[in-house]
Amino acid sequence: MKKHFLFTPGPTPIPPESLLSMANQIDYHRSAEAAAQIKDVSEKLKLVFQTRNDVVILTSSGTGAMESVVANILSRGDRVIVIRSGKFGERWGEICSAYGVEFVPIDLEWGESIEPQLVADLLDEHAGIKAVFSTLCETSTGALHDIKSLGQITKRRPTLLVVDAVSALGADDLQMDSWGVDVVVSCSHKGLMTPPGLAFAALNQAAWEASEKASLPKYYFDLRKAQQASWSGSAPYTPAITFIAALQLALNRISTEGIRNVIARHAQLAKAARSAVKSMGLQLFASNPANTLTSILLPEQVDGTRFVRMMREKHGITLAGGQGKLRGKIIRIAHLGWMGENDIVLAIAALERGLSEIGQELQLGAGVAAAQEVFHRQSCSDS
Amino acid sequence: MKKHFLFTPGPTPIPPESLLSMANQIDYHRSAEAAAQIKDVSEKLKLVFQTRNDVVILTSSGTGAMESVVANILSRGDRVIVIRSGKFGERWGEICSAYGVEFVPIDLEWGESIEPQLVADLLDEHAGIKAVFSTLCETSTGALHDIKSLGQITKRRPTLLVVDAVSALGADDLQMDSWGVDVVVSCSHKGLMTPPGLAFAALNQAAWEASEKASLPKYYFDLRKAQQASWSGSAPYTPAITFIAALQLALNRISTEGIRNVIARHAQLAKAARSAVKSMGLQLFASNPANTLTSILLPEQVDGTRFVRMMREKHGITLAGGQGKLRGKIIRIAHLGWMGENDIVLAIAALERGLSEIGQELQLGAGVAAAQEVFHRQSCSDS
Repeated sequence: MKKHFLFTPGPTPIPPESLLSMANQIDYHRSAEAAAQIKDVSEKLKLVFQTRNDVVILTSSGTGAMESVVANILSRGDRVIVIRSGKFGERWGEICSAYGVEFVPIDLEWGESIEPQLVADLLDEHAGIKAVFSTLCETSTGALHDIKSLGQITKRRPTLLVVDAVSALGADDLQMDSWGVDVVVSCSHKGLMTPPGLAFAALNQAAWEASEKASLPKYYFDLRKAQQASWSGSAPYTPAITFIAALQLALNRISTEGIRNVIARHAQLAKAARSAVKSMGLQLFASNPANTLTSILLPEQVDGTRFVRMMREKHGITLAGGQGKLRGKIIRIAHLGWMGENDIVLAIAALERGLSEIGQELQLGAGVAAAQEVFHRQSCSDS
Repeated sequence: MKKHFLFTPGPTPIPPESLLSMANQIDYHRSAEAAAQIKDVSEKLKLVFQTRNDVVILTSSGTGAMESVVANILSRGDRVIVIRSGKFGERWGEICSAYGVEFVPIDLEWGESIEPQLVADLLDEHAGIKAVFSTLCETSTGALHDIKSLGQITKRRPTLLVVDAVSALGADDLQMDSWGVDVVVSCSHKGLMTPPGLAFAALNQAAWEASEKASLPKYYFDLRKAQQASWSGSAPYTPAITFIAALQLALNRISTEGIRNVIARHAQLAKAARSAVKSMGLQLFASNPANTLTSILLPEQVDGTRFVRMMREKHGITLAGGQGKLRGKIIRIAHLGWMGENDIVLAIAALERGLSEIGQELQLGAGVAAAQEVFHRQSCSDS
């Protein structure tokens, strides 16, 4: 009779109507009905990306969309800046290296966020930088980067700003158009409450112009071809239509709630989680944490890998551990997508029990009370 | 109260237990349970590929797997042979061109199958050809290529044989190991009765060795990384686990029926469909048709695009029309995946009515009777 609860930063829980839609018998992806669905999803994605640009749909994980951007806007020997403060910032660099794109890294301590002036200085120092690659929320650490300030820096220069919003889209604010972000990539299985398998790339005019000159090889990930097909509700290669149908329903939820409210809800959940963590005597890992997830530095004597397993097996709570050099050292609780106040209470309470059981000194209920306070204050100020 | 029936060569109807599995709440792709599932699926795929080599799972359409092979086994300036007898043979050439791989085309009339000696002659004529690219069933025409004979030619030479079995896997015989095929690619939404979104690549020892020397850029489609991750039931990037769960159930059906029986069933369905088409006075399009689908050359006065739409809207039967230069000229009826005798009867009967309605001279019931005859003879010889 165990009940399972998922708090990983992807996949995230899927609303029931989306789940049920996937149990429908499949239909042809080139039917008029499928075309209407693809067009509707493409339009609604614009609300979440906060853009008037086309959002291109790919069948791949988020990494596929990241690679597509490198391959579509750059040429061999181009130079770019990559902000590396965790596994996913590093991934931008790895993709660039795979394609022979030179990059100037800005290496931060994992858990830290970029000081935008560093980017401005580096752009002044190095002429001809084609693009700056950043994450919005660095999923491996939970740190949020100040994309708005980066946009102010790049939009005054002939340099594209490319943002990996894979985990943070729909949780942390990202105003693609008004902040001057040139490219945003994301995927289906985080804030968009849909299974993994779809990825998205939105390019503005400047990025599309760069794509005309870019000579890196691509075929499956040719974004121009995908964009053109999308205008008639199609795709160059058979898309994962099952997930497009599920995504349509998830996007209906988001457009009903309103993207500003969705982000505000995530901000509240994050605030409650952080308050709870501090009240439990634990240390937040990221210095400027995102709404997407809360990363917690575990006390040194705790084996994080074992703790995550115990939380899943004994308490039915699936958290994420640390990745790369943070393996075993942090845990990450995502409050992302189809999540509300009750989910946070439940996760914090289980965390309290789990930590107590492995001998951590803490007062049961302290974390939950702190989360409750945040929700209660919000509720009173709303009414 | 319309009932819809899908006869496109992908996607194909999905069995009910697979559909229902996708309505389950999602779980973490890095759990022990997910790892066991990925390992089981990887093993069972070997039965369908008729190989002892690893079958690598990618999250993409079949085209992604095609591109992965080019990028993983070749280097810029390598020369290959591409057999082009339809849209998908041409695709191999397009991918090679995108990556700067030179190819010698063998261009056949669409609908024709390769004369293997042509390949042998061309290999003798051009030294240093790294690979021969073919399709098993050219989905755009329904023609089957003689891969067994091609294998006999390439295995005596330092040339890899790469086969696109995207539509034909599990319908037409392809004995990867015993025929000496070096690389086979396929995907989830054809013979494997699962939604579009997963693709597969199986490489033998020689192909893996080639991959060590190959220098074309790749990241998301790095097959070695995917292979190594699969050994522990993982994937380098978040896989479409929803479809892996559905695929596991579809593979259970295939392994229960047995791959030889699955192929024999498809052969019978194809034989019945072809017999029916001929009895209706229509002309088969492919000279050597595959078990995967039956392509029919429409009488000149029939507008195929309009006819396909009418069959869907009025009769609830979704067929595929022609692609590329065959647009409007042929129709394609797939008998692929979760299909049995009743499906063929139903499709042929509807086709009879549809053609009669647009003024084609035919005897209602003639096609159905011919299909029945094939099934009846088989049933009597079985008992």
